[in-house]
Amino acid sequence: MLFQDIIKKKRDGEELSSGEITSLVRSFAAGEIPDYQMTAFLMAVCWRGMSSHETACLTEALLASGKTLPADSAPGRRIDKHSTGGVGDKVSLVLAPLVASMGVRVPMISGRALGHTGGTLDKLESIPGFRSQLSVEEISSGIRDVGLVIAGETDELLSTERRLYALRGVTATVESVPLITASILSKKFAEGLDGLVLDVKTGSGAFMREIDAARALARSLVSIARATNKPVVAVITDMSQPLGAMVGNATELVEAVETLQGGGPEDLVRVTLELGFQMLRLAGLCDDREEAQLRLRKNLGDGSAMNKFLEMVMRQGGDATSLEDLTKYVSRNVRDVCSPMSGYIAGIDTYKMGLGAVVLGAGRKRLGDTIDHSTGYKVLARLGDRIDKGAPLTKVFYRDEASFSEAERLILEAYGISDSNVEPSVPRLIHEIIAE
Amino acid sequence: MLFQDIIKKKRDGEELSSGEITSLVRSFAAGEIPDYQMTAFLMAVCWRGMSSHETACLTEALLASGKTLPADSAPGRRIDKHSTGGVGDKVSLVLAPLVASMGVRVPMISGRALGHTGGTLDKLESIPGFRSQLSVEEISSGIRDVGLVIAGETDELLSTERRLYALRGVTATVESVPLITASILSKKFAEGLDGLVLDVKTGSGAFMREIDAARALARSLVSIARATNKPVVAVITDMSQPLGAMVGNATELVEAVETLQGGGPEDLVRVTLELGFQMLRLAGLCDDREEAQLRLRKNLGDGSAMNKFLEMVMRQGGDATSLEDLTKYVSRNVRDVCSPMSGYIAGIDTYKMGLGAVVLGAGRKRLGDTIDHSTGYKVLARLGDRIDKGAPLTKVFYRDEASFSEAERLILEAYGISDSNVEPSVPRLIHEIIAE
Repeated sequence: MLFQDIIKKKRDGEELSSGEITSLVRSFAAGEIPDYQMTAFLMAVCWRGMSSHETACLTEALLASGKTLPADSAPGRRIDKHSTGGVGDKVSLVLAPLVASMGVRVPMISGRALGHTGGTLDKLESIPGFRSQLSVEEISSGIRDVGLVIAGETDELLSTERRLYALRGVTATVESVPLITASILSKKFAEGLDGLVLDVKTGSGAFMREIDAARALARSLVSIARATNKPVVAVITDMSQPLGAMVGNATELVEAVETLQGGGPEDLVRVTLELGFQMLRLAGLCDDREEAQLRLRKNLGDGSAMNKFLEMVMRQGGDATSLEDLTKYVSRNVRDVCSPMSGYIAGIDTYKMGLGAVVLGAGRKRLGDTIDHSTGYKVLARLGDRIDKGAPLTKVFYRDEASFSEAERLILEAYGISDSNVEPSVPRLIHEIIAE
Repeated sequence: MLFQDIIKKKRDGEELSSGEITSLVRSFAAGEIPDYQMTAFLMAVCWRGMSSHETACLTEALLASGKTLPADSAPGRRIDKHSTGGVGDKVSLVLAPLVASMGVRVPMISGRALGHTGGTLDKLESIPGFRSQLSVEEISSGIRDVGLVIAGETDELLSTERRLYALRGVTATVESVPLITASILSKKFAEGLDGLVLDVKTGSGAFMREIDAARALARSLVSIARATNKPVVAVITDMSQPLGAMVGNATELVEAVETLQGGGPEDLVRVTLELGFQMLRLAGLCDDREEAQLRLRKNLGDGSAMNKFLEMVMRQGGDATSLEDLTKYVSRNVRDVCSPMSGYIAGIDTYKMGLGAVVLGAGRKRLGDTIDHSTGYKVLARLGDRIDKGAPLTKVFYRDEASFSEAERLILEAYGISDSNVEPSVPRLIHEIIAE
């Protein structure tokens, strides 16, 4: 079959066979299909969608088309967590070492800040010397020896998916549930996982703002994963406001380390414990939520989680002594953004809050932009809080006056303050758990 | 605006501004937009369509982006005819010299056989020495001196549209009314036309099989042409069976020359006279159908049309003496395909008849395939005809037994023979004329 006939079939809304999808991915991987045919196909998929069967085939074909992390004989199951992204989402920094400290092996291949969302690798790179670009060999030995790696994508792993993803970014073909599903699952299972926990965010700072859209993506991910025999659980969590108080890079790292040492903001802890329980369950270590969360809290309190984090940081070249006082990596230029009126915090446009971090230099408009690890802000007023006129909404760590002013404008626009006397309702933190 | 934002806008069903369409085409022409972005855009257009305003902008932007045939001071308006294509459609070979013999100037840039349809250039190339690939200078001087040129596309004229068209062919983005409209109109008006007559075919051998689809395309062409101030008339004609009797290359040329000399099959003559009247009308030479057709018939009868044809053939390097007996260029291997039963010819799958010509070598599966000018067939049984078992349906001119057998199978499949005693209805030849 000619490749244009496969495009035509999808364009006309027909279901492709597994043979067609496999040959399509294989030919694309071999360079036999030009990009201009692939992007027409991708747009046809945005138009017509894909059945579960097609999406499962695409996932498996992408996995089969590229190199994956080799298995090893070290004990412990490999479990990872993937988040659809948000503002202040430093869960990975706490969760990965926490569950690794309990014997789960976490080969976390992670991303960078882009658009309104932050990136785990950028936050870690606030640590002097920390290397996030590792070779496949370094990743493999880190998983074997430390049980925890947090690193960036490599050119070697799953190169076909990476090429596809790059094409989607420049052809407006990102927003397609089957394409997102196949991309996430193939990318994650290329880590050689035994199970995956998905943190699907919903709310004003999430890609899936509406709960219905988040649920659709979560269900797609879980059902396609099941079709490919991969154990996956999705947890839909709230992104109606930044998670925790800190937004930025060194700023978020400060908060993550506090949490790893038994402190930290309650919302961050609760999301971490729920995802942690799901990871332990998939790892076969504990089936009881209460017991799991007690054990997780213990490892936060007794230094086990922090020690695992330190071990990983040192293994990846980071300066461990820097963690003793991370605040010195946060900008000394500090100023508050204050409330123009009294009332209740009724809504936060978290997307705009994310853009506020970008203008401060803590994020990226496009891949390749450099970032300033020292900037960011601390959220002081949260949904449902009572605020007085002139009281601080956020504390901003900035580089120069111009960027502060722009961020201040975005933050003020982001806050919705109600002058009624009725306390506004606050969305629940854990919306749903979708396991099958 | 980033180009991917334009793709996104179209993907989301929004209307693009004229500025966006112009910059898109201009950037594509300048090589600033990679093909893989353009094809995603084209598929989004197949999905979401284009408004009349967008289609008119696209047409004008394509026209403005490339070189067009220069105007000259020779007398007579430039009028051309474009057909959406069919089987046995040799109208151009008769019509162009016929109206040129009456003072209309016809700068016909034409196409090649592809898929189930034949190509005017391939038919002309049955004449020894005939050159259809002319430079812009040769085309211009031919129009000035002879008043008639029938030639292939050049790399120089409307290069952007040609690149776009090539991309559409391999990405299943051909079948879109706005894209077809902009392509036809820009390509034709790049000839520097004063008016254009469109022969929109409908029926089993046409791209638009259903009359509704043909009407939609015809209306789109006429209304977009009016929006860009180009005089255009569309005639919807029947393609429920091959036009005339002959299908192939030298075979069709034989029939065209018979018609140019006052003979030829009645359906071919009638379509030619209707299109001829519309061309004379657009040329400002005659507004009365009856008078126009009388004058056209006179020029077929008195040798004027044939002389203009000869003049053009010689100008383009063709051997005029070969026209004295064209049958020597038709294959000597002749065999009939005979009816397996008695009855009425109730239907002909003309698409399959076209594929029959391809397997005989008279057409192309894909661009670049070479063709055999001597093969083809003569349709002996037409819609509504009474046929006896064993009587010939077609007379086939073939190269080898294998291709004859394959063609015979297709032709037998194409004929629908009804054994009822009711004479089947036959579609009208000229369905509709759409002038505004």
